[in-house]
Order: sequence, then structure tokens, then C-alpha cells
Amino acid sequence: MFLHMNREAVAHIRKKIARLVEHRAFLATIMIFIVINALIVGLETYPRLYQDYTSVFYALDRVLLWIFTIEIILRMIAAKPALSFFKGTWNWFDFLIVFAGHVFAGAHFVTVLRILRVLRVLRAISVIPSLRRLVDALLLTIPALGNILILMGIIFYIYAVIGTMLYQDIAPEYFGNLQLSFLTLFQVVTLESWASNVMRPIFEQEPLSWIYFVSFVLVGTFVVFNLFIGVIVNNVEKANEMELAANNDKKDDNKEPTPFTNEKQIDELQRDVQELKQLLLEEKENRSR
Amino acid sequence: MFLHMNREAVAHIRKKIARLVEHRAFLATIMIFIVINALIVGLETYPRLYQDYTSVFYALDRVLLWIFTIEIILRMIAAKPALSFFKGTWNWFDFLIVFAGHVFAGAHFVTVLRILRVLRVLRAISVIPSLRRLVDALLLTIPALGNILILMGIIFYIYAVIGTMLYQDIAPEYFGNLQLSFLTLFQVVTLESWASNVMRPIFEQEPLSWIYFVSFVLVGTFVVFNLFIGVIVNNVEKANEMELAANNDKKDDNKEPTPFTNEKQIDELQRDVQELKQLLLEEKENRSR
Amino acid sequence: MFLHMNREAVAHIRKKIARLVEHRAFLATIMIFIVINALIVGLETYPRLYQDYTSVFYALDRVLLWIFTIEIILRMIAAKPALSFFKGTWNWFDFLIVFAGHVFAGAHFVTVLRILRVLRVLRAISVIPSLRRLVDALLLTIPALGNILILMGIIFYIYAVIGTMLYQDIAPEYFGNLQLSFLTLFQVVTLESWASNVMRPIFEQEPLSWIYFVSFVLVGTFVVFNLFIGVIVNNVEKANEMELAANNDKKDDNKEPTPFTNEKQIDELQRDVQELKQLLLEEKENRSR
Amino acid sequence: MFLHMNREAVAHIRKKIARLVEHRAFLATIMIFIVINALIVGLETYPRLYQDYTSVFYALDRVLLWIFTIEIILRMIAAKPALSFFKGTWNWFDFLIVFAGHVFAGAHFVTVLRILRVLRVLRAISVIPSLRRLVDALLLTIPALGNILILMGIIFYIYAVIGTMLYQDIAPEYFGNLQLSFLTLFQVVTLESWASNVMRPIFEQEPLSWIYFVSFVLVGTFVVFNLFIGVIVNNVEKANEMELAANNDKKDDNKEPTPFTNEKQIDELQRDVQELKQLLLEEKENRSR
Repeated sequence: MFLHMNREAVAHIRKKIARLVEHRAFLATIMIFIVINALIVGLETYPRLYQDYTSVFYALDRVLLWIFTIEIILRMIAAKPALSFFKGTWNWFDFLIVFAGHVFAGAHFVTVLRILRVLRVLRAISVIPSLRRLVDALLLTIPALGNILILMGIIFYIYAVIGTMLYQDIAPEYFGNLQLSFLTLFQVVTLESWASNVMRPIFEQEPLSWIYFVSFVLVGTFVVFNLFIGVIVNNVEKANEMELAANNDKKDDNKEPTPFTNEKQIDELQRDVQELKQLLLEEKENRSR
Repeated sequence: MFLHMNREAVAHIRKKIARLVEHRAFLATIMIFIVINALIVGLETYPRLYQDYTSVFYALDRVLLWIFTIEIILRMIAAKPALSFFKGTWNWFDFLIVFAGHVFAGAHFVTVLRILRVLRVLRAISVIPSLRRLVDALLLTIPALGNILILMGIIFYIYAVIGTMLYQDIAPEYFGNLQLSFLTLFQVVTLESWASNVMRPIFEQEPLSWIYFVSFVLVGTFVVFNLFIGVIVNNVEKANEMELAANNDKKDDNKEPTPFTNEKQIDELQRDVQELKQLLLEEKENRSR
Repeated sequence: MFLHMNREAVAHIRKKIARLVEHRAFLATIMIFIVINALIVGLETYPRLYQDYTSVFYALDRVLLWIFTIEIILRMIAAKPALSFFKGTWNWFDFLIVFAGHVFAGAHFVTVLRILRVLRVLRAISVIPSLRRLVDALLLTIPALGNILILMGIIFYIYAVIGTMLYQDIAPEYFGNLQLSFLTLFQVVTLESWASNVMRPIFEQEPLSWIYFVSFVLVGTFVVFNLFIGVIVNNVEKANEMELAANNDKKDDNKEPTPFTNEKQIDELQRDVQELKQLLLEEKENRSR
Repeated sequence: MFLHMNREAVAHIRKKIARLVEHRAFLATIMIFIVINALIVGLETYPRLYQDYTSVFYALDRVLLWIFTIEIILRMIAAKPALSFFKGTWNWFDFLIVFAGHVFAGAHFVTVLRILRVLRVLRAISVIPSLRRLVDALLLTIPALGNILILMGIIFYIYAVIGTMLYQDIAPEYFGNLQLSFLTLFQVVTLESWASNVMRPIFEQEPLSWIYFVSFVLVGTFVVFNLFIGVIVNNVEKANEMELAANNDKKDDNKEPTPFTNEKQIDELQRDVQELKQLLLEEKENRSR
């Protein structure tokens, strides 16, 4: 019976925590701590300020880390089976960003630790639902672009290998090895100094090198452009769907979007009219009998 | 009775002023003064001309300022409760641009005064209705982009903090402090010299810095692109709505745009056909009785 | 009677010329001469070739000029009232391009003459109908952009005046006078070296100059982007209309594009069904009597 | 009879090969060899690695070349009339890429051979059906852009000739001859350093040169933009059609896309209702008789 009481008490506490965690004030508080965290990492970039108040910054950071840790533990408890917390990708994100702070705390990777602290600002996205939806929508478009990304990869790889092969000795800064060539091609595809800095010095020594660069600019920008357009078309579609899903929670309405309603109506009309004809024909037959 | 007369006379004058202010010739005259103002501020940029005719320019500017002041006072009087003038944002804009000229007149802020004089050219937008509508449409799209602007801000902030943290000492010109980093990131997002001037010098000393720059270019341009597309989609929608509102002033037509008419018609059709069926069925029953 | 004969003969010749001028072979021949003209002006750019064969180039150019002159005279004659030739803008274009060659022939404006010869290559557009239609479509979009172009002009003017005012002495190369500022702002709006060459040197002396440049980049690219989108939307619409106009010459079909046909059909359906109801109701009444 | 047997056996073998060639495992194996080929050409770009293992790389390349040769011969045999293999453009592509390896094998064109080996990576596109469809879709849009490409060509040619004519001596690096001018104009149309490197040095000597550059930037980017938009619109349409063709293999459905179905339904409805009216009218007449 004690055990039973205990289990019930636990369930009771869990419910209370769940209600707390989903409360608007809870989200607002966390949001405030995220903003404070953002301000601290911003202020830390000023060397004088950092040198004078190192210990204050350190203390504040410790406090914030523990606040976020407690927040995540509470949200874990609130999840019915505690491990179902890890079903959401954003929860994983929150968990990793916060607990990595503990893992690296003892170590001497100061830069890693500081970057982690900055990345905690990203939690603003996971905390604000509308931002989370926006980023979800943006990210969901990437898998749909699989083919064009593979095509892009093949084109980059071929041009990188040829570029390294041909201009390794002429322009070691840009085509010294395969990695450098990839970086240079990325620069070229953004059209940044592709001619003035990258092509023209090579062009002076290799008069045919313009073929390599002009063809890459044409093919590269064309594919990138298609990639971007693909992203947009996808985004617009996804955004529309999400808006629909958000507006009408009635699931049946959702499954039959407006254009289909129209078609469905016409279908029904057709059936009705056919029935009418049937009725009239039957009548006619009746009478002629 | 004298008071009554007076009140009536005032109302009469107000009406006359209102008619004057809304007259095409009035707008045209103001427009001409705005163009003259534009020409004067243009000519003032030529140092020799300005030195030779400083007093002429000064006198002309005073005259124009008073013309615009009188214009705005007339428009205030024309507004039924005089303060309802301040309900329109464009009126506020006109008021501030003109009266700031008086406020700073005595002071020694020559540059501020001159910039104010130039900004008066912006009144061309508030005076020409079609331009005002265009700018309204462009500005109205901004609130709808709230989320993506917040996302942009978070991304900029995180990259600015990390950039300042990592490259403060290597490239003080670009990442010397948080403000400079913001400016540099804005430059990078426009893809201007992002590789040749910003990344490559840092890349020579920090071989991993390409991750920072390439990831920012990818994320930044992707979000900016989505931002722009969002603006466009919004604009197109708004423009369509505005055109609709301008074309058909019949408010009922406005509430039921063309696609719905179609659907409505189909609905009516369906009801008609159902009634038909009902009629035929009743008849059938009648006969079978 | 002789006069009558003469008039008839003239009409006969005009008809023959009209048929000749509209013949495919005639167009093809002119096209060949345009290509030859293009080759000649291309070859002339090679100094050695030009020096060795100056007289040949000169002679060929004279011949081509007279061929084009005769072509245009024939097309003028073919036009029913000869002056109706000047109703088409493309005809004006052809006329000016060719006859300017005669006007400047005697003069010593060698460069003008040579540029005129190059511009004759543009006649390829006026001769090929599909190209002419394409350019017509592209040009027709410009008037519809009136408002946004005026807005662009106001923004450029205000920034040019302020830029000249503030940075005349700091960066005379970029903001030395109003004309230079316009050119610089055009460069900035294309995002070419706006930061590395234009802003950063000024920024070093005027720490607040970033406001000027960043605001201009934001406003300028935003408006340019809207301008381009406007052009596109316009083009697509115009192209659709042109295609429609080209496909179905039946003018009634043109006035009722496909979506309306659909609506028209539904209207008819509705009328039919209403008549049906009327019929059934009448019958019912008849029987009940 | 032996001959008959033989012919049957041949047909049998051909069938078996056809089945083999179309098997998923076959495609997967080829894909693996393409990836290996890609890795080898990538590793070859590291000079030390290449010098140490030249013979290994050579041997591996020989093996891969023969594997691909056998693959293509098998696919040729699998094609019913062996020469029908050459009907597909992608087959031609595969054939040329592979057999050129044999043709140049004996020769001393080391660079050509190496580039050929790199280009074999492109076979990944011809082997993966979804990538092949994507590239097909991208390429199919080019012929539809014929007119705008011709227009682009005319504009480039005219500006190249004028540019060479006017700035040959001032900027020999950029406008030294017609070919260089074309390259420079291509650079200008991508907006890369068009002002800072190309225009400004010329502008210092020829104050009117801004007309040439600004007009080219305006016209060039405008046409390129329209070109890209044309490509996009085309792509979207083509992609939609392809998806439709892929989804519903029922050819009748394909010939009548969804919007028409709707219209067809309304047509049928109209016919039905008309029949109904006819029926009722006949009845009415019957009764009145």
C-alpha cells in the first residue's frame, strides 16, 4: 500500500511538473535566461570587460548551465515515459547543447566551451514554437533536393579534380590540392572575384583556362539557381500545408483541400443528375406501359 | 448670434480650405516646390556654386520651408478635428520632416539641417498617391516577415559572437569587435569580397576557418533568399488585394472573390438539383399512391 | 485614260513589291546581309586586318549601306500610303539606323559611323519576327514599372545628394560630385565591391558611414528586387497573352479565356437546371389542378 | 538445324544478358566501379601519392576501363538490334566516354586521358535513372530558350565589337581583341568586379565610358534574368509533366490532365442536364397531346 501511495504520488508530481513545463510563464522564464546567456556571450567578446570580470562571467555561466540542466530534467520527467523525451529532434538538440557544457566543463577546450555557450542562443529557436516551425519547414526541404544536391556534388567533384590536375602548379593558393579546389569552386559559384582574382592570373599563363571557368560558372550557377528554386517551391508548398494544418484542426477538412472539394462537389452533382435521369426514364417507362 | 455667425464662418472657411487642399492644382503646386527643393539640394553639392550663392540658397530654403509649413497648416485645418490630421502615418512623416527644419534652424547642426532638406524630397512619395500606395505595400510586408527576421537576427548574432571570439586578433579590421563583426557578416551575406578579402587572409592562418565562412554563406544566403521570396509572395498578394480593392468599390464583390463565386455557383447548382430530385421523388410517390 | 493606266500600273508595281518584300527569300537575303555586316564589323576590330584592307572594308560597307537603303525604300513603297511605313516603331528603328549612315558619311565622326555600322547588327532583331516579339514583350513591361522606377529615382537622388554632401572630400573618386555619386550608387546596388572598395576606406574615417551604406544596400536591393519581380510577372502575363493572341485568332475566344469558359459553362448549367425546375413545377401545378 | 539451334541459343543468351543488364545488382556494381573510379582520379591529384604508386594507378585504371567496356558491350548485345543501343543519347555518351579511353590510350595526350578518366565520373548520372531524368529535364529547357539566347548573343556581339573598338588601347587586358572582350563582358554580366577592375580604370581616361558599362549591365542582367526565369518556368512545367507521366502510367489519364477532367465532367453534366430537359419536354408534349 505504501508502494501504491508512492506510485500515485509520483504520478501526481509528474502531472504537476508537466503542467508547469507547458505553462507560458515557464517558457517565458527560459526565454529570458536564453537572452541573458546571449548578452553574456556578447559581452565576453570585449577583452577588457572579460579580463576584469572573468570570475563573474564564469559564475553566471555556471548558474545558467544549471538552470538549463534543471529545465531539461523537468521536461524529461514531464514526458510520460521519461525516454519519450528523446523522440523529438529539438529535445535532442536541447539536451546535447546543454549537457555538452557539463562534459567539456572539466576539460581545457576553452574555445569549444565558449562556442557551446554561444550555441545555447540557438535554443531560442527550439523554445519559440513559431521559430521552430519555420526552421522545421526550411530543413524539411533539404531531403527533397537529394537529386540536385547529388548532381551538384558530382559537378563539383569533377571540376575540383580537373582544376587540381591542371592548375596545381600555376595557382597553388587556389588549386593546390583537392580541398583547396573545392573551396575555390565554392567561391566561384558565389561569383566572388571569380574572374579578377581566380581566373585572370591563370588565364595569363593558360589561354584555354577560360573554358574551365566559364563552363563552371554557367553550369554551377544554373544548378545552384535550380537548387534555390527547388527550395522555394518546396517551402511555399510546405508553408501552405502547415498553415492549413494549423488553421483547420478538423482532420477531414485537411485531407480534402479546397480544389478537391470543388471536384467532389461536381462528382456529387453528376451522380445526382444521373439519378434524376434515371428517375425520369423510369417514369417514362411506367407511363408507356 | 455673433458667436454663431463666427462658428459658421469658421466651418465655411474650413470647407473651402479642405476643397483647396484636395484640389489637383494644389497637389501639383506642392509637387513643383518639392522638385525645386530637390534641384536646390542637388545644386548645393557643387562647392563653387554653393560658395558663390550661399545667401541665395539660404533664402530659397527659408522660402520653401515656409511654403511647406503653410501647406501642412492648411492641411491640418482642413482635417475635421484638427488633430485627426495626425492619424495618417504619412501626415506624421510630412509634419516631422518639415517642422524639424524649424527646430534645428537656430542650432549649428549644419549637416543635420542639410540632410533634413534632402529628406524633404521624400515628400514626393507622400504627395503622389500611387507612390504612397506602392511604399505602403512594400512596408506592409515587413511585419509578416517577423519570424524569419528574428531567425536572421539569431544567426547573425551567433556568428558575430563566434567570429569576434575566434578572429579578433587575426583580422581586427573585420572582426575587431562585435559591431565590426556584424558589419563584416552583412558584407559576407551580400557575397561581396567574402572570400578574397575576408576569408582568405584568415584562412592562411586558421585552416579550419573555412567552416565558419562556408557555413555562414550557405545558411545566410539561404535565409536571405527565403526572406526575399517571402517579401515577394507577400507583395504580390498585397498588390492583388489592393488592385481588387481599387477596381471594385462594391464591398460585397470584394468579400467574395472570383474563385468563391464559382464554388458558390456550384453550391447553388447542387441545391437546385437536389430540389429537382425531391420534386421528382414526390411526384413518383404521388403517382404510386 | 493614260493617267488611269499609269495609276493602275503603279498600283500593280506596288502590289508586286509588297509581295516581294513579304517573301521569305527576301527576309532571308536581308538576314544574310546583316550577318555579313556583323562579320565585317567584327573583323574590323583587328587592327592589322583593318590597316591592310581599309579600302575593302570601306567599299563593302558602302555596298551594304546601299543594299539596306534600297530594302527600306522598297518596304516604304510596299506600304499602302507610303508614310504608313512610319507607324511601326521597328520601321522607324530600321530607317534611323540605316539613314544615319548616310547623314554621317561625309562627316569626320569616324567613331560614330563605326558604332552605327555595329548597331546595324541590331536589325537582326527587327527582321526576325520571333525576336521582334520577344523584345517587344520585354520593352512593354517598362511602362508598367513607372511607379517603382520613380521610387528608385527618388531613392538614388536622395542618397546621391547626401553621399556627395558627406563624402565629397573623403572619397573624391566615388563621391566627388553628384554624377560620380550616381555611378557609385549604381555600383553599390549591384553589390560590386560596395564594402571592400567603397565603404571600408570611408568607414575608417567616418565611423557612422556604415549607416549610409548598409541602409542603401538594404533599400536599394529590396527595390531593385521588386523591380525585377515586377518585370517578370509582367513578362509572364504578356507572354501568355501574346501566345493566346497568336494561337487563337478567333477574337471571341480571346475575350473569354479558358477559366471563364468554365464559369460560362457553369452559368449555362445553372440556367438549364433552373429551367428544369420550372418545367417540373409547372407540371406539378398542372396535375394538381 | 544447327544454324537454327545456334540462332535460338543466341536469342537465349541475349535474353539472359538483357535480364542481367537490367538487374538492380548490375547497376549497383557499375555504380560501385564508378565510385572507385572517382576515388582513384581524386587520389591521383596528390602528387606524392601519384609518384609513389603510378603503376598501381595505371593498372587500376586499365582494369576499370575494361570493366566499363565490357559493361557497354553487354548492354549493346542486350539491345534487340544491337545498333538500337545508339538511339539513346545517354548510351552514346557512355560509349564515347569509355571508348575514347581506348582511342587515346596509345597516344601521349596525358592530360586528355586524365580528363577523360575524370569525366567517367559523369557516368554516375547516366547510370542513376533519377539523376538522368533530372539532367534531361534541365537540358530540355535549353531549346525552348532559343530566342532569348539569340538575343543575348546579338547583344554580346554588339557590345564586344564596340568595346574592342573603343577600349582596345586603353585596357588591352580586358578589351584587347574580340575574344577578350567577350570574356570581359561575361565577367561584367556576372557583376564580378565590373566597376572596380573593369570600368573605373577606363572611366578615368574616357569619362563617357560609363554609358557603355551601365547600359550593358542594365541590358545584360535584365536579359540574363529573363533567361533564368524562362529556364525556371520551363523546368517547373517539365517537372510537373514528368511527375504526372511517372505517377499515372495510364495513358488516357495522361492525355487529360486534372484541370481538363474537371472541364470534361462539367461538359458531361451539361449534356446530362440537357438530356433531362429533353426528357421533360417530351413528356410535357406527350401529355398536352
